[in-house]
Amino acid sequence: MLTRTSTQSLAEQLAALFAERIRNRLLAPGSRLPSVRECARQQDVSPHTVVAAYDKLLAQGLVEARRQRGFFVRDAASAEPVRRLGAATAPAAPAVPLVLAATQADASSLIRGMFHRQSDKPQPGMGVFPPDWMDSTFMPTSLRRLTGTKALQELSLQYGEPAGDAALRRSLSQKLVGINVPAPPEQILTSIGATHALDIVSRTLLRAGDPVMVEEPGWAIEFARLESLGMRILPVPRRADGPDLAVMAQYCEAHQPKLFVSVSVLHNPTGYSLTPGSAHRVLQLANRHDFHIVEDDTYSHLAPEHATRLCALDGLQRTIYVSGFAKILAPNWRIGFLAAPPALFSRLLETKLLSTLTTPALFERALAWCIDQGQLRRHAERVRLRLDGARARTVKLAIAHDCSFVSEPAGLFGWVETGVDTDALTQRMLDEGYLLAPGSLFHARRPPSTLMRVNFATAQDATFWKVFARVRASMKA
Amino acid sequence: MLTRTSTQSLAEQLAALFAERIRNRLLAPGSRLPSVRECARQQDVSPHTVVAAYDKLLAQGLVEARRQRGFFVRDAASAEPVRRLGAATAPAAPAVPLVLAATQADASSLIRGMFHRQSDKPQPGMGVFPPDWMDSTFMPTSLRRLTGTKALQELSLQYGEPAGDAALRRSLSQKLVGINVPAPPEQILTSIGATHALDIVSRTLLRAGDPVMVEEPGWAIEFARLESLGMRILPVPRRADGPDLAVMAQYCEAHQPKLFVSVSVLHNPTGYSLTPGSAHRVLQLANRHDFHIVEDDTYSHLAPEHATRLCALDGLQRTIYVSGFAKILAPNWRIGFLAAPPALFSRLLETKLLSTLTTPALFERALAWCIDQGQLRRHAERVRLRLDGARARTVKLAIAHDCSFVSEPAGLFGWVETGVDTDALTQRMLDEGYLLAPGSLFHARRPPSTLMRVNFATAQDATFWKVFARVRASMKA
Repeated sequence: MLTRTSTQSLAEQLAALFAERIRNRLLAPGSRLPSVRECARQQDVSPHTVVAAYDKLLAQGLVEARRQRGFFVRDAASAEPVRRLGAATAPAAPAVPLVLAATQADASSLIRGMFHRQSDKPQPGMGVFPPDWMDSTFMPTSLRRLTGTKALQELSLQYGEPAGDAALRRSLSQKLVGINVPAPPEQILTSIGATHALDIVSRTLLRAGDPVMVEEPGWAIEFARLESLGMRILPVPRRADGPDLAVMAQYCEAHQPKLFVSVSVLHNPTGYSLTPGSAHRVLQLANRHDFHIVEDDTYSHLAPEHATRLCALDGLQRTIYVSGFAKILAPNWRIGFLAAPPALFSRLLETKLLSTLTTPALFERALAWCIDQGQLRRHAERVRLRLDGARARTVKLAIAHDCSFVSEPAGLFGWVETGVDTDALTQRMLDEGYLLAPGSLFHARRPPSTLMRVNFATAQDATFWKVFARVRASMKA
Repeated sequence: MLTRTSTQSLAEQLAALFAERIRNRLLAPGSRLPSVRECARQQDVSPHTVVAAYDKLLAQGLVEARRQRGFFVRDAASAEPVRRLGAATAPAAPAVPLVLAATQADASSLIRGMFHRQSDKPQPGMGVFPPDWMDSTFMPTSLRRLTGTKALQELSLQYGEPAGDAALRRSLSQKLVGINVPAPPEQILTSIGATHALDIVSRTLLRAGDPVMVEEPGWAIEFARLESLGMRILPVPRRADGPDLAVMAQYCEAHQPKLFVSVSVLHNPTGYSLTPGSAHRVLQLANRHDFHIVEDDTYSHLAPEHATRLCALDGLQRTIYVSGFAKILAPNWRIGFLAAPPALFSRLLETKLLSTLTTPALFERALAWCIDQGQLRRHAERVRLRLDGARARTVKLAIAHDCSFVSEPAGLFGWVETGVDTDALTQRMLDEGYLLAPGSLFHARRPPSTLMRVNFATAQDATFWKVFARVRASMKA
């Protein structure tokens, strides 16, 4: 990253690099910077340069020196302690070597980092397809069609329908028929992406302190949100065929959880999909112990239609279906939705109104058109084919670089064994311009892990794997 | 509303009218329908027709008959009790005559009703300008400019910046200079309307059970959201010059509230604006008792720039500024924002990520252009002038129809004394195709009230006031 031809001195460049990482919280408050010697070796500069860079960070108030211990990231220039997501209500983390704990970025920093462009390099840690995979003509056409007419004003100048654009809810209802989820438009509620839909569900069904079962490994945002709402998280190990039913049964006896949060199909990060037998038993448990299930089907566009969904078996009796279009069409349009039992619908709609009032109808109407014209379906088919190729190449590269896959590669993500601590690896790879998704990010309590999640679409790049292998070797040395 | 020339019988039309109102929860579960005799008189039909209509509602399962007491709206066809907003944690309401309690729509129904188009008539109870007031050429031009180019894909195909579109945050920062609120772009966070910004603030700063001070009268959504989050609401009477400081001081001693929610300028529903002296004393109290203040400046576009804002006096030390564009540009674009002290920013951003991830950048970028080109400012000037005229006409009409104004008419809303119970009035006016905003809607505990809020832009209509006077006279008879 550092260049000797720049108008900035090497120390200035190095200080700027750390400053940016601190501001983006990729180096969390309290983290220790590498020792001067270590940093000099990593960055291939003299110790004098590192000292000069650290002095600049000190002067900017971004770090503090602790006698005999080194330099530490300061606490956000804030009188109030920064409440770290993922650390608020969780029990104390198991003891880990100082060097790991110190360089471990917290969950929210890594999440936030994932939305920042690190560099021009393909980012194997990212959660969506690269923009060029989503590039289409039908999506702009659909939107332009609406902005070019009186429809724009009609869709803009009033709040719009509380449940969401009627045309989109009709399209979604028909689309759900294809996966055997029976949801008339009156049971569908649009949202600001699937995240908002999951948020609406947890706020409606849970009160602070309620126990909730969540698959583990699972997506960090879900853990962090439930914790920020004050819920008690009961992590359920996710197996190849579905959640660990024995653990769930124990939780039901001991804690009477209100809700189970599940990614049945192409689970993040493992790629597992639920089997029909497992689905049946999960629903039996839910009936016996009277809990609701929210099924996050974010990756549905990448899965075969015949994949098993809890909502299809249950017929939306005690299940709520959630999905969105960030993974297939346009992440920034922020369109998600839920389909819910009639008995819950009114309360869910109330929560939507209280959190955002309505949602932008222009995007919703444009999406309806893309669905109705079959454009989205054909686009998804093309993306699936392209992903199949990328997955095959990524798997080959990963194995060639001494990695193995914990689960059978499927869908968008691979769950990869690296052999080294991936929190430390993540910090080191940032120096090379790559943001990884370390295994700890997918656990409620963030234990150290040697796993990482790779995006098959962005990890089919030989250069990345070469850098990865070099950095890993230096860590083992 | 009923017509003898329709292909539907009068009983069918009447049943359909009640059915729609029940489904939209403008008649809340548990409400009593008017007696057969009363309904016949109100609708000018025979008692036989009313009986036939009520029988149809019975057959549809929407109402139930209780011996000797009449017909009551059934409980949402749900096994689960519908938790009514505004009734969850509030103490028992004071005893009111049965006829009022029975016809009182609950807060959420009325809120939801406000987003449904009642009829083609101007709606004095609505919270925004009628669409034709917002009609502009610059807003579609700005959006079309973006959808016609590569920018559309750039803004759509990635999640976008966590804090919101950088161009908009720069524009907002400059705009805030005009009202003396010092907020660099790094302290600004965009949201899905002001509602989402207020939601982000309460979720970040409060935990369930925390006491929070809210001005009363105040906007129903704010009461309902804080209650749904499990907060303890401490209502602070709003006076002409600002909040009641004596009551606030007592709350501070007794409850140590964490937050004060205030609409300083053109307060909803009274139209009051904070005086500098009152602002100073509120901030002194906040410093002494260490609470934060969120200042909801939703009506800023309608106010003079020199209006007193707490955030300007305080310089965003313990104040958070919230505003949006639903009241001046495009309600459905759902663009709001907050400006916060640096020490709180990171936590607020985390809450945004957990609730919706990012927000749609296309609208944000289009809005930035409208601001930068001065279009929004000129548009707001025109709207203010037009509103001045509408306000003068509405005031004259209201006074001519024996109403008086509790507060000096200003801004968008008038706070009107009607002389009759406005919950009952609201139900009767629905029969005429008008949705009112009754006084009880603006109180945490929803006590009966003879006040109503009128929108000056939509109440300058002589026909409305004639109907109003007739219905009120029939209630007094």
